[in-house]
Amino acid sequence: MESLKIALLQHNPKVADVKHNLDKLESMIRKESKKGFDLFVAPELALVGYSPRDLLSQPSLIQAEQDALDSIRRLSEELSVGILLGHTEKREGAGKPLFNSCTLFEKGYALGRIRKRRIPHYDIFMEERFFESARDLPQEPLSFRGFKLGLFICEDGWWEVKKYGKNDLAYPHWTDEIDAQLAKSDVLINISASPYNFSKYERRKEIFSKHALKHSTPLLFSTCVGAQDEILFDGPSFAMNTQGVLEFESKSFEEDVLRVEVSKNKKIRSIDQLPIPLHEDPWDTFHQVLVLGIRDFVRKNSFKKIVLGLSGGIDSALVAYLAKEALGAENVLGVSLPTKFNSAETRSDARKLAENLGIEFREIPIGDLVSSAEKIMNVTPSGLVYENLQSRSRGLLLMTLSAQENRLLLTTGNKSELAMGYSTLYGDMCGALAPIGDLYKTDVFGMCHWIQSHLGSPFPESILTRPPSAELAPDQKDEDSLPEYAILDVILEDIIENQSLNKQALTSFANDVSKLSFDDIVKRLHSMEFKRYQAPPILKVHPRSFGYGWQMPLVKGFNP
Amino acid sequence: MESLKIALLQHNPKVADVKHNLDKLESMIRKESKKGFDLFVAPELALVGYSPRDLLSQPSLIQAEQDALDSIRRLSEELSVGILLGHTEKREGAGKPLFNSCTLFEKGYALGRIRKRRIPHYDIFMEERFFESARDLPQEPLSFRGFKLGLFICEDGWWEVKKYGKNDLAYPHWTDEIDAQLAKSDVLINISASPYNFSKYERRKEIFSKHALKHSTPLLFSTCVGAQDEILFDGPSFAMNTQGVLEFESKSFEEDVLRVEVSKNKKIRSIDQLPIPLHEDPWDTFHQVLVLGIRDFVRKNSFKKIVLGLSGGIDSALVAYLAKEALGAENVLGVSLPTKFNSAETRSDARKLAENLGIEFREIPIGDLVSSAEKIMNVTPSGLVYENLQSRSRGLLLMTLSAQENRLLLTTGNKSELAMGYSTLYGDMCGALAPIGDLYKTDVFGMCHWIQSHLGSPFPESILTRPPSAELAPDQKDEDSLPEYAILDVILEDIIENQSLNKQALTSFANDVSKLSFDDIVKRLHSMEFKRYQAPPILKVHPRSFGYGWQMPLVKGFNP
Repeated sequence: MESLKIALLQHNPKVADVKHNLDKLESMIRKESKKGFDLFVAPELALVGYSPRDLLSQPSLIQAEQDALDSIRRLSEELSVGILLGHTEKREGAGKPLFNSCTLFEKGYALGRIRKRRIPHYDIFMEERFFESARDLPQEPLSFRGFKLGLFICEDGWWEVKKYGKNDLAYPHWTDEIDAQLAKSDVLINISASPYNFSKYERRKEIFSKHALKHSTPLLFSTCVGAQDEILFDGPSFAMNTQGVLEFESKSFEEDVLRVEVSKNKKIRSIDQLPIPLHEDPWDTFHQVLVLGIRDFVRKNSFKKIVLGLSGGIDSALVAYLAKEALGAENVLGVSLPTKFNSAETRSDARKLAENLGIEFREIPIGDLVSSAEKIMNVTPSGLVYENLQSRSRGLLLMTLSAQENRLLLTTGNKSELAMGYSTLYGDMCGALAPIGDLYKTDVFGMCHWIQSHLGSPFPESILTRPPSAELAPDQKDEDSLPEYAILDVILEDIIENQSLNKQALTSFANDVSKLSFDDIVKRLHSMEFKRYQAPPILKVHPRSFGYGWQMPLVKGFNP
Repeated sequence: MESLKIALLQHNPKVADVKHNLDKLESMIRKESKKGFDLFVAPELALVGYSPRDLLSQPSLIQAEQDALDSIRRLSEELSVGILLGHTEKREGAGKPLFNSCTLFEKGYALGRIRKRRIPHYDIFMEERFFESARDLPQEPLSFRGFKLGLFICEDGWWEVKKYGKNDLAYPHWTDEIDAQLAKSDVLINISASPYNFSKYERRKEIFSKHALKHSTPLLFSTCVGAQDEILFDGPSFAMNTQGVLEFESKSFEEDVLRVEVSKNKKIRSIDQLPIPLHEDPWDTFHQVLVLGIRDFVRKNSFKKIVLGLSGGIDSALVAYLAKEALGAENVLGVSLPTKFNSAETRSDARKLAENLGIEFREIPIGDLVSSAEKIMNVTPSGLVYENLQSRSRGLLLMTLSAQENRLLLTTGNKSELAMGYSTLYGDMCGALAPIGDLYKTDVFGMCHWIQSHLGSPFPESILTRPPSAELAPDQKDEDSLPEYAILDVILEDIIENQSLNKQALTSFANDVSKLSFDDIVKRLHSMEFKRYQAPPILKVHPRSFGYGWQMPLVKGFNP
């Protein structure tokens, strides 16, 4: 053959729901097969989803996947097409029980298989709990209809030495072995389950561009899309030419098929005549991936409706906006739960916001509940105990409402608050999901201003300009007890994302302008671990988020 | 020399508190050095504690440990002794940033070093995030004063093939390499941080007995003691003869020094003339390790006092008893928080229990708070919403009390409840620690009956005999909505600890006697993940506990 028509299937799997995932892939393949494709490519672990985590220890899941693979095999025969997809593979003997593999089916046969070498176990990844590295296995390109396919799985394409705590991916001889295989290929195909972070789109292009360029061979990148717990798969799948230049890509944030024709002389073209993609606005991506995260979390958990507390502040305003985008205004309920400390202005802003968004709004004053607890426990009506009591009264009422109306409760805390423990456990931390729990406060400002200027000014202007306040005491401001967020966030980001790489410079910075020193911030961050241990799942958007990728001890004597 | 006098230092480190741990070891060594010891042995990662988890990415921690190692080196010179201890070791190049190492110091020099090959990353372990395996490094016994020391670190002594999901420890050529080293030695020394589970004492003896016997060489096992988050290090350190017979051991559950003399002809003797240990009563160990876990969690977090809700039921009775043992009766406050559903009998039992234990007792009726919330939210006064409201009202009041009096709140839920979600998030699940969260209900019964008959009958008899009830509705019994615990726990244990190995037999068992089928129980277990995600840390006593070792997805479509 002079060319191969290839369809990359960017599906949105549900973890451990093999039947659902198989049905989805089958129907995509059946629909597309009428268009004369030679080869269908589905992402890493396409049938079990990424990642079943410890469910990989369940023999029934592995068996269901085996059966589904057999359906795929028969489908390749029925439709006379090639189908290539990622799956687990049982193995015997010393070592871990599974490989992370990729098999090519055609005419009812498994034509060939490659296995993942680099098994990630940093950040959110824990593949080493189950997957053995294929480090000692020689791997060759697979032959398919006269083409040599150079296959590699996700992490095997990420070759550079990574930074402290993550440079486990850099066995140079593995890179040589992978290169030896890719060098013999007519087209490179990487199947992935590639999670989002703020700069990941650019990083993926940069990394995979190097592979294409090094081998002067076109490259296809196939990934899944959708959210799984805290992990967001943004897509897109894409195609690069022999120069490593991005030629075209699928849609992001939704299921899509990327249709490609690759010729013997290593040219690629888009069957749909897709244009060369423009560099996207990162704020646009950033807000869309959160919308996807909320939608998938709520719907994959079989809920339709959500509720959240609306304080009149910027955090809950952002979550309300994103939830409306994700689920439709009719499925979002915002509740204001005022005390005497909530100003007329914030109460009115909460109501105006709900009107602007077209979401349902209720006001439930909490004074009576707080008074009742105050009397029972003889609480002094000021100070931290009293502040937490207000927050917990709100949590209790919102959880009651959540159960009464079968609405998932979203929590509205941000990363700066979670880092500093500026939040109440079992109070404002109540909720099934923390959609902006990985956004620093300055990210929240930035995203809201971007939304305000690009997406029809949904926010009452005063929400964007008022100094942040928890309104749990008279005239309280966040910056009474925390450094200004513009300062705090620079320091937090260095501590959390950069292992305090810029500590020296930021220490003098903090000395000059911050009410807490660099080391004080480190100490407070770590002393608040007990709150984060019981926090809801957080949608991950930064290289290092609280949650699966932040495994810190609770009991410790760490002194920076 | 004809013999070596060796002291095994079983210390209780605080994670990431290098100064504290160094001071402790130094003072133990200085005190013992007057007795003419040749060699001091401290456990795995003795200076940073086990385990700093992601704090291992902090350069300041690794630097502090380096400085502490230098103090140890100088101490070996000052006292003219050998000191052998576990520590992290920075490494360069491809791969992970650290080795898990063990160095022998003498006369101000590092005489030699061995490194861990088997890096565990199953269950609660996540060493692969930071530690590179020393798989490619030849290792020889270290020579010390005419003796050859066969050193190996923790997991390198656990050679058998493990079950599904855990058989990563079984690289046979590693076993050969370790054996080659051990075969040349005059004494075998394994340094560990070996966590407790119910059968671990016997397993350790069995495993290490094989090493001693295989090489006809005495074996010393050195471990730390104490609790770190959910992980309990019970000890003891011990010595085995060339037949693999346990000769003597240190105390369990507390710091101790095991003093041993090893002669050139491979005889060992206890310098303190310790007797051959008797087989311990496993219930005794079981309850003592929980006492240790509570004490260390509370004290290492710099608290002195705790509070817990006393329902008059068996779970809170057990936690109260354990807390009293751990912290002293004067530091324990039990609070009864009755509603109209709480019987006179349970209320009186709660009070009697407190009297028996000598702990402080208060009664705080919650009716007014529940009514207040009931009115605000128009809650129907029966059904799940109303039940959760009662539980959350208790949580709110206990958290308020906790903050008012600087007492850590202990939660009293057991493993059967956590498995089935028979608990209220932000209600009875509130707390800093779940001391019996890894005890099945039948474990709770067993332990209470053992305590009752062995430790002075602290429990009012009716607490032990009354059918379990949450008392959130009239005449409610747990077994209205759950299978009998005696049945449920057998099934849960198979699902959680055995990967449903006995599914077939237990399916017919459940069909005969249980109100929920085996698969229904699996489904309910997995559907309740969202509660466990936000649960407090749980003291681990079984091979598989909820917490660090239970990494399950939240969003999933798993169907057994």
